[in-house]
Amino acid sequence: MIETPYLLFLGDAPDALAAKVARGIRDWRPDYAVGQFRMEGCKADMGLPDMTLAEAKDAGVKTLVIGVANRGGVISAAWKRVLVEALETGFDLASGLHNLLRDEPELVAAAKANGRALHDVRIPTVKYPIADGVKRSGKRCLAVGTDCSVGKMYTALALDAALKEQGVKSSFRATGQTGILITGEGVPLDAVVADFMAGAVEWLTPNNDTDHWDIIEGQGSLFHVSYSGVTMALVHGGQPDALILSHEPTRTHMRGLPGYSLPTLEALRDTALPMARVANPACEVVGIAINTAAMGEDEALAYMAEVEARMGLPTVDPYRQGAGRLAEALQAM
Amino acid sequence: MIETPYLLFLGDAPDALAAKVARGIRDWRPDYAVGQFRMEGCKADMGLPDMTLAEAKDAGVKTLVIGVANRGGVISAAWKRVLVEALETGFDLASGLHNLLRDEPELVAAAKANGRALHDVRIPTVKYPIADGVKRSGKRCLAVGTDCSVGKMYTALALDAALKEQGVKSSFRATGQTGILITGEGVPLDAVVADFMAGAVEWLTPNNDTDHWDIIEGQGSLFHVSYSGVTMALVHGGQPDALILSHEPTRTHMRGLPGYSLPTLEALRDTALPMARVANPACEVVGIAINTAAMGEDEALAYMAEVEARMGLPTVDPYRQGAGRLAEALQAM
Repeated sequence: MIETPYLLFLGDAPDALAAKVARGIRDWRPDYAVGQFRMEGCKADMGLPDMTLAEAKDAGVKTLVIGVANRGGVISAAWKRVLVEALETGFDLASGLHNLLRDEPELVAAAKANGRALHDVRIPTVKYPIADGVKRSGKRCLAVGTDCSVGKMYTALALDAALKEQGVKSSFRATGQTGILITGEGVPLDAVVADFMAGAVEWLTPNNDTDHWDIIEGQGSLFHVSYSGVTMALVHGGQPDALILSHEPTRTHMRGLPGYSLPTLEALRDTALPMARVANPACEVVGIAINTAAMGEDEALAYMAEVEARMGLPTVDPYRQGAGRLAEALQAM
Repeated sequence: MIETPYLLFLGDAPDALAAKVARGIRDWRPDYAVGQFRMEGCKADMGLPDMTLAEAKDAGVKTLVIGVANRGGVISAAWKRVLVEALETGFDLASGLHNLLRDEPELVAAAKANGRALHDVRIPTVKYPIADGVKRSGKRCLAVGTDCSVGKMYTALALDAALKEQGVKSSFRATGQTGILITGEGVPLDAVVADFMAGAVEWLTPNNDTDHWDIIEGQGSLFHVSYSGVTMALVHGGQPDALILSHEPTRTHMRGLPGYSLPTLEALRDTALPMARVANPACEVVGIAINTAAMGEDEALAYMAEVEARMGLPTVDPYRQGAGRLAEALQAM
């Protein structure tokens, strides 16, 4: 568990896109985001107060979160000077970079000298159990996609927020690096050893109040040959009561797989639902989340109306429209 | 790759069952099994010449393979004395034990001093790629089961042997510890990090002659909630042209999951085939392998006749009957 609140380190981000982790934290856990730290040349701005490390300390910050991708796969000397100073100021560090903080001797030494923690969220730190498939109390929802990167994390975060707005107990359960940095905890599922994947998901979504919803962040796609095993572990380890189908309508082929076309929403439903019912016979598909970022407003609305009529399920773009209707669908179960 | 031939270390096996790895090697790769090494109290016997380490050296042995499970999860002092002497004699060691050879300082020191290798086949030693889904040349067959431990490895080994007998080019591709020790190479798939599972299977079954069959060892089951993700990676990474359905008819619930009943062969076919066709649209289900070890001869034959009529597919017990009919079904494709 990463201690909050955070100072968001934007470094020398070349553009806003490079700071998407920081953006996610600011959008979804604004109470965690006390300020931002920008270096010379930084082109990203979260609209948060710019703070020195000392100012952040006074503001109660506990952890400096690297909210930006690094360039060229190295943690630069300029970054390292700031990170060492942050440890000396009394902050923990949290990072989802491929380069691990723990592989940098200066950071390890500074963390040790100052009694601080280095959180590399790409690497599991828990010894997960093998899944036992025992039915857990509480309710669970999982978004499954026609492809990778179609908005499953965003959908889950929006659904969690909408449920809370509607007065329903809900937890977003992160299964990827960005989700973990946003919420401060979770399972980096793609880095878990095969035999323990489903058990890690069970561990992530334990018994809970019967009227509580875990909104589990999806990963990959049952139709994406590179990552389908990870998705399968979520479908079985998650024991979802409800599935949301996620889709990006302008995608011409599966992400990173030029030879593979996307399945239809019907094929996704007919594949995912029977598999989910192995672990939870009561599971239902309750709604559809469309990522219409690449479509104009009219086109997007027309497309979603067509899908809603065809599939007979509430169909929304959680970004354009919010996830209120999906939350209502969960409550209606 | 583990160097052959082997001396099979049976240690102080309390019974024949404890030596099932040695049995697998003796049954499936008899040319690798030059002799056996038994300690006082050993109750297992492979029917191979008992050899001292020096005799095995003279017979050309390259690797001592631990063919027996250890007791109480520790490598005993008595074992270690033999293993150190084996390294000093000039043998490599290979083991599928949960306790790793590399975690034993005496073995590490003796291996280093004598320039020998310690093969812990539970642990991947290759940096596997992420699967790219590109169609590979050659043909592939995968056994998928209604449950774990229903005879998929045995079926694959028998099918590989039957194809070779019929003059067809074939390779057994091991994906588990026992299979790796039997054949000397493979991928310990259940120990691979999630993101690389399907890529590890692609790596294991590379481009080959168009008339060559890779017989891929199956793992888990799409219906076993603890391990279904591993199976999914085999179905997609393996790009099978042919699926064999594996089943054990007397099983009353999924292995280790008392609350879960087994799927029907029809459900297995209807789930596995569409998923396999995502990676290989030409895939077909070509036969059924039944593990009838718990049935009498008449009962087994009647059961298989019923399944064959119902499913319209050649149905055999590869142990009782050999896998010749399954091999013919592959050739007929």
